[in-house]
Parts: sequence; C-alpha cells; structure tokens
Amino acid sequence: MNLKALSQHLGLSQTTVSRALNGYPEVSERTRERVMQAAIELNYRPNPNAKSLATGRTEHIGIILPIEQNLFMEPVFGEFMAGIAQCLAEADMDMTIMPTPRSNELQAYQQLAISGRVDGILISSPTLQDARVACLAESDFPFVLHGRTECAFPYSYLDIDNQGAFANATRLLLDLGHQRISLVNGDESMTFARDRHAGYRQALQEHGVTYDPQLVCSQGSMTEEHGFNSVSRLLLQRPRPSAFIVGSMILALGAMRAIRHHGLEPGHDIALIAHDDHLPYLQADKFDPPLTTTSSSIRAAGYEITQVLHAEINNKGMGHSQTVLPVELIVRGSTRTYKRPA
Amino acid sequence: MNLKALSQHLGLSQTTVSRALNGYPEVSERTRERVMQAAIELNYRPNPNAKSLATGRTEHIGIILPIEQNLFMEPVFGEFMAGIAQCLAEADMDMTIMPTPRSNELQAYQQLAISGRVDGILISSPTLQDARVACLAESDFPFVLHGRTECAFPYSYLDIDNQGAFANATRLLLDLGHQRISLVNGDESMTFARDRHAGYRQALQEHGVTYDPQLVCSQGSMTEEHGFNSVSRLLLQRPRPSAFIVGSMILALGAMRAIRHHGLEPGHDIALIAHDDHLPYLQADKFDPPLTTTSSSIRAAGYEITQVLHAEINNKGMGHSQTVLPVELIVRGSTRTYKRPA
Repeated sequence: MNLKALSQHLGLSQTTVSRALNGYPEVSERTRERVMQAAIELNYRPNPNAKSLATGRTEHIGIILPIEQNLFMEPVFGEFMAGIAQCLAEADMDMTIMPTPRSNELQAYQQLAISGRVDGILISSPTLQDARVACLAESDFPFVLHGRTECAFPYSYLDIDNQGAFANATRLLLDLGHQRISLVNGDESMTFARDRHAGYRQALQEHGVTYDPQLVCSQGSMTEEHGFNSVSRLLLQRPRPSAFIVGSMILALGAMRAIRHHGLEPGHDIALIAHDDHLPYLQADKFDPPLTTTSSSIRAAGYEITQVLHAEINNKGMGHSQTVLPVELIVRGSTRTYKRPA
Repeated sequence: MNLKALSQHLGLSQTTVSRALNGYPEVSERTRERVMQAAIELNYRPNPNAKSLATGRTEHIGIILPIEQNLFMEPVFGEFMAGIAQCLAEADMDMTIMPTPRSNELQAYQQLAISGRVDGILISSPTLQDARVACLAESDFPFVLHGRTECAFPYSYLDIDNQGAFANATRLLLDLGHQRISLVNGDESMTFARDRHAGYRQALQEHGVTYDPQLVCSQGSMTEEHGFNSVSRLLLQRPRPSAFIVGSMILALGAMRAIRHHGLEPGHDIALIAHDDHLPYLQADKFDPPLTTTSSSIRAAGYEITQVLHAEINNKGMGHSQTVLPVELIVRGSTRTYKRPA
C-alpha cells in the first residue's frame, strides 16, 4: 500500500498523512496515532523520497556517466560496477546513474551534489587535472575518486599502483635479457596510463636502457583491434621489439593475433605481458601460452571504493582516505622463453 | 542553493518553503511570491525528491540487480546498459540500480514499484515462467521485459528472434554439407537459450537430420573457459562434429582455442558460427579467420527498450508493446571451406 492509497483509506490529505508518518509537529497526536495504526495494518511502505526529506539521507550513491565516452562499453567498467553493487547490497544502499553529455558534465556533478538524491558520489577515469574532482572538492560533498589526479588539494581516492606494476613488468623483461620492449598503453590524458608509462621509463632507466618513444603507443582505445594494429605496426620496426607490455587483456588478444600474423610465436619469439583486471570471462591462465600479467581485481576495487564512500558519508568532514592498492606480477608462459633475435 | 539554505535565508521553515515552491494552497500568496523571488535570485535548484512528491514523476527508471548472478559480470550487459544510458540522456531521465540478494528479489520489485522512486522498471534475462514478470504485471506498474516468457498474460517486451537466428545458422551449415553440428548454448532455464535450441532443432528437422542431444551443451556460463572446455569435450566424439554454433563471441574465443588445441584449423577443418552482440572491443571480422555470426546489436536493444518503457510510462494502461527484432546472419571465413572428414 502506498501513500495515496493510505490517504484515501483514511479520508485524509496525502500531505497530512505524510506529515503524520514523519512526525511533523503540526499534526495532532490523535491523528498521528490513527495514521500509524492504519499504516501498520495495511502494510504501508514508506515512500523513500518522502523519508529522505525527513532524515536527510537517501541511502543512494551517484555515478555520472558521460554518454560520448560510454564507460559501460569498457569491459572493465562492468566488473568495477559489480564490486560496487556487491558492497551496496551489503550496506542496503542503491545507486543512481545519471547519463550526461560531456558538454554538461560539470553542471551535472553540481546538480547531483545539491539535488538531495544521493548521499555521495563516485568518480572514475580521472585526468591529471580533473575538473570534476576540483568541482566536488569545493562543494564539500562526499565523494571518492577511483584513481588519482595531480590536483594539489586533499580528497579521498582509491587507486592501484600502476607505476609500480609497469615498472615490475618492465624489470622482469629486462632481467630476461630483453632490450627492445614495447609499451601499448591506454589514453595518456588519463592518470592511470601516464603512471604506467612512468613505471616503464623508470625501469628502463634503472637498467641503463635508453628510452625510445617509437616503442611506445599511447593512443587508442582498449579494443582487440587496437591491440592488433599497434602491435602489428610496432613489429615492423628494425631492430624488432622482442617483448610487449599491453594495458589490458583485450589488447592482449589483439597482440597475440598480431604476433602470429607476423609468423611469430607468442612466449617463444616474442614475450608478452598484459595488465589483468580479472575479467571473469577471459582468464590469463587460459591463454595459449598462459599470459604473464600485472594482476589486480577491479571488482575488489569497486567493492572497496564503495566502502570508503560509505565511511565518507557517515563521517562527513572527518578527513580523507587515500589508498593505493599493490599490484601483483604473475609470471606465466608468455614470458618463459627468451630467444635473442638473430 | 538548496532548500535548506534558501529556507535559512528567508527565515522560514523548510516545510513552508517547499510548500510555497510546489504551489500548495496552505501558503499565502504573499509568502509564495517572496519564496519564488528569492529562489530565482539565489539560483535555487529544486530538490527532485520534493518535486516528485508534487508531480508524481521521478524521471527515473529502475533496474534490480541480483548480486549472486551479477549481470554486470556479463560483458553483454555493459553494452545493454550503454544503450539504455544513451536513450535516458536524450529523454533527460536517470536510472536507479538496486543491487539485491536473489532471496529478496521479488520483494525488491514490489518495493521498487510502490516506492515512488522510479516511473518504470526494466527487467532482463527472463526464465520461462518468470515470477518477476508475473509480480509486476499484477501490480500494473509500467515495465518492459528484455526477452520473453511463456507467461499467458499480456505485458510489454522487446526481444530478438533467437529461434530464427539459430535456425538460420544451422541451415547454413547444413547447406554446406555439415551433418554433425554441435551447439554450445547458454543456460537453458533462460528463454533466449531455450529459443536458440529450438531454432537449431527446427533446422535439423527441416533437413531430415536426426537430433543428437549429445551434440548439445546447454550448461555453463558465457566464459572463454567454458567455450574451451565444452568444445574440447565435444571434439572427442566419434564421428567428430564438423561444425559448432556457440552462443557468444567470448565462447567463440574459447572454441577457437579448443579447435587449435586439437590440431585442427577453424574455418578449414571445423566450421564455427557465433552469436555476436556487437561488443565494441571484440569484433567478429577481426577474428582469424573472420567469424560467421548471427548478428544483433544489444546496445541498440538497450536503446530501443528504454524508448518503449518511456512510452509505457507516458501512456500508462494504453496497451502493451511487443517487439521481436530480426537477427542478421553474416557469413565470413569461419564457415567458408568445408572439408568432409575422411
């Protein structure tokens, strides 16, 4: 039974019944008791919007989705959302998703923050100077960023150690004797890709190997096609790269296809390392050869960042939570053999 | 500026200001004018919750997400959501996602329908006798189902022609001379998988080929690993299947690996057809050999079903919309050559 039906049953206005249910003082005690009695008998369920007006809490978190660069299209975003959903279910909270054109994005964040619809906001895929982060930090509205920026002011974030992960992957290849190591990275206007590039350069420098920008591909999306095209092109260089580090499992699919297309055998002629976000439908140990990976569950990150946001909402203004999760390097067959090119 | 700040500025209670803004009669005209004036000057943005109490519309649609069988983990669900998001942005609507344990699912649908939080609900992945559909149909709350059920009562749905698609794929293989055709299907408690199985049987029957249940695998999830395991096992049968139809592009990845693992060449020794939902990061024409597919954009389906729901909300009680989208059969290299086994 809803508010309308309950009001009709009682012969009272919806405004009066709503006020009675929410304990507003302008309703007499006798009316309040009559309304509450009927609500219990008739199995009335409170309208959460009305309730949120009274309690100031919606038990909703918000996510703004730019529709041009649709995050749902990224296979990893689904896993991230799965982790968020798991945590929300445990906290008995829901999520509001606002699809918004990029041109209206900042205004949408401001509107969402003052809308009273959500208690906190999650932001993902930050750029180095992310205007959304600056905008929300100014508004004092609870939010947590998945990733980091170079913004100077404090805010809460949860990130993985992208730089450390790609430094470790590069070190492994250098230790195996590789000198021509290619990096197929993500979009470097994003912090995660910039950090990965930095880790790669750092390891080269430690080993005294000259950094060659021609070995790095840092444009393009995380598609099988981009993995194929960029690795195909990089394999035409002479001396040929003997190893590749690629930013995702989907890129690795395309990389494998490109390596075979050149008549080469992955793991034998060419070493390959991919970053693995733990997509349940595409597992690194099931590749042929099994893939060496920098490994970090983006689902776990979704779960954890939602816990952080929940704490942020409960302890508003109590400081910021800044977490960087370590990334594991898992060595498998795709880097097992190294054959120095003739 | 929000309701609280506006009320403080005016020296009035939030209840009074809210009533004034929403045109409730118990507020004097003089007060109403004073409140509206201040709201405009101070750039007040209405609280959409308060607004929805007045208009009866939230401009939100709802999706309930069972957390055990997490739909976000399915790569196709992300694409479906991308289509929904696109349509919502154009209609200036948002979406509420309620993650819910399976044990509480039906209650969650009832609660969401009476909550006043959303104007309509989208349901996906139906079973043959789907309790959620029965429950919402009874409540008269606007909803649209992605897929169909065997329920007898009327309701709105949008589906693709799964039966026709898999009949066409099977016919193509039969016309090429294949007799031992394997089907690696999805979970057959779901209508889509049951329909695909029916299409496969229908085409065999038309061609007078005996149906062999041993050639059908209808358990397991849409993972690369399941594709590999089921095709590996089916390839041990004698006489060996010479063709496979698999339910998704991710299954096709595993099927290709299994075929090669048996020392066979996809498209040459073994024909392969996959259902393609148009995942942007994994394209059928980029497989090696390019994949023959039954092809249908799940993104377009997400867009279209949201349009149907929007119409359903606007024309409440005006009948039901039942759409079955055709599926294209696109012939590529993976079914080009047929070598009859010795």
